[in-house]
Amino acid sequence: MNASPAPLRIAVWQCEQRPGDVAGNLARLRATALNAAGQGAQLLVCPEMFLGGYNIGAEAAQRLAEPADGASAQAIAALAREAGLAIAWGFAERDAAGAVFNAAQVADAQGQLRGAYRKTHLFGALDRTMFSASDGGGPLIELHGWRVAMLICYDVEFPEAVRAVALRGADLLIVPTANMQGFDTVPLTLVPARAYENQLFVAYANACGPEGELVYGGLSGVAAPDGTLLAQAGRDEALLVVDLAADHPGRRLNSYLSDRRPETYGVLTARS
Amino acid sequence: MNASPAPLRIAVWQCEQRPGDVAGNLARLRATALNAAGQGAQLLVCPEMFLGGYNIGAEAAQRLAEPADGASAQAIAALAREAGLAIAWGFAERDAAGAVFNAAQVADAQGQLRGAYRKTHLFGALDRTMFSASDGGGPLIELHGWRVAMLICYDVEFPEAVRAVALRGADLLIVPTANMQGFDTVPLTLVPARAYENQLFVAYANACGPEGELVYGGLSGVAAPDGTLLAQAGRDEALLVVDLAADHPGRRLNSYLSDRRPETYGVLTARS
Repeated sequence: MNASPAPLRIAVWQCEQRPGDVAGNLARLRATALNAAGQGAQLLVCPEMFLGGYNIGAEAAQRLAEPADGASAQAIAALAREAGLAIAWGFAERDAAGAVFNAAQVADAQGQLRGAYRKTHLFGALDRTMFSASDGGGPLIELHGWRVAMLICYDVEFPEAVRAVALRGADLLIVPTANMQGFDTVPLTLVPARAYENQLFVAYANACGPEGELVYGGLSGVAAPDGTLLAQAGRDEALLVVDLAADHPGRRLNSYLSDRRPETYGVLTARS
Repeated sequence: MNASPAPLRIAVWQCEQRPGDVAGNLARLRATALNAAGQGAQLLVCPEMFLGGYNIGAEAAQRLAEPADGASAQAIAALAREAGLAIAWGFAERDAAGAVFNAAQVADAQGQLRGAYRKTHLFGALDRTMFSASDGGGPLIELHGWRVAMLICYDVEFPEAVRAVALRGADLLIVPTANMQGFDTVPLTLVPARAYENQLFVAYANACGPEGELVYGGLSGVAAPDGTLLAQAGRDEALLVVDLAADHPGRRLNSYLSDRRPETYGVLTARS
């Protein structure tokens, strides 16, 4: 972390998916961004594939996909500037070659698009029928002195993916997600474990309620570097507003990053 | 896992450390091994550095260290044969060159020594003043059709170390440990996370009570591949006896091992 920045106030929005209704989603995002900003939040995190819905099938994913600087991104960037806070949201991204990715990006409070992340670990047939997989990477975005990284949903369940962003220097990992009922171990156990074992904050913004035959499990949360949950939603829509302290004692509780033995981890990068 | 072996009954022994008293420790191990075998256990797991104590300082660690097939190992192998169950225990190992390691090994019910593991991730000054670090590896031991791997204490807090044994095919990870009070997040959150994210069982055998200025936190436990704790001790001495089912549904709940993206994990093996 840079020379101890001020606390960062973040808002994690747990909401139902409204598949296919981009205009409606932009409208409710506007209301939520203004609400979060009114509570002093500096960053609002929305669920995975918030913009057009997630369980929509390949045809709709193709049809709704936009470039990272497309019309909806421009609208959200303008909203971020109007509301005066950064916004992270999930969307279907079409690249110049026509490939479609499960992506998330950040627009900052000045209305600048700060870079998109594309999901690296695809989840089952649901993702694979709609999306190409990222080859990894993604931006590390500085916001108010905090270094913010993104992963999407299933990515965070892989300790390798979170370790990689920690080694790149992230202070805060934001995770737009659409985690289904039956997988509560992810928000209850894995997300706190990721924060603890990497000495960083994790903000996990889940969907809730049904979308087609899927039912999302909610339990969005913000985990601190000591493995505690600073806030956690239930099963219904919620807006969590949480202050993150740069000098949280959990950041110094362990020295995992410096005690690693990378020379013994060769099997982790072997191709199967 | 091999063609669905029978359930494995394991015993996890949480006990106080008795530093320097090897004869006394062998005597109480005998009583515990006979007790566990009488309950049908096929494998008994003891804490880290059980044989001679852990918080003993460099001079005592040097003095108490033995070769992996030394006199105490021979005695425990004979006990394992007499009691009719495998025993895993922590000890200070001296190699042929005189280096001393924080080690653990298994003697099986036929009285055979099945290989030692040496701690790879040293914990603070406590370990570093006493021990050399392993360069990784360690045996994968087949017991009754189960493939059993070992790590020691701080090792299990590194997701890389557990992933490595999972990728090598372990069904069960046994972890002799001496985890101190103040680090309850390890048994309560990290150990269940390791089991869940690697689709294997984790048996975590901790010390309890004081040893010099240290106080161990107990909370030994056995975590299933669905992230649940099949059993967990409190703060006092305990013997947990647990049946592990090879066809536990948690082993098929996720497909993490096949969904990994090792080509994106290069940063994990970079030397700092």
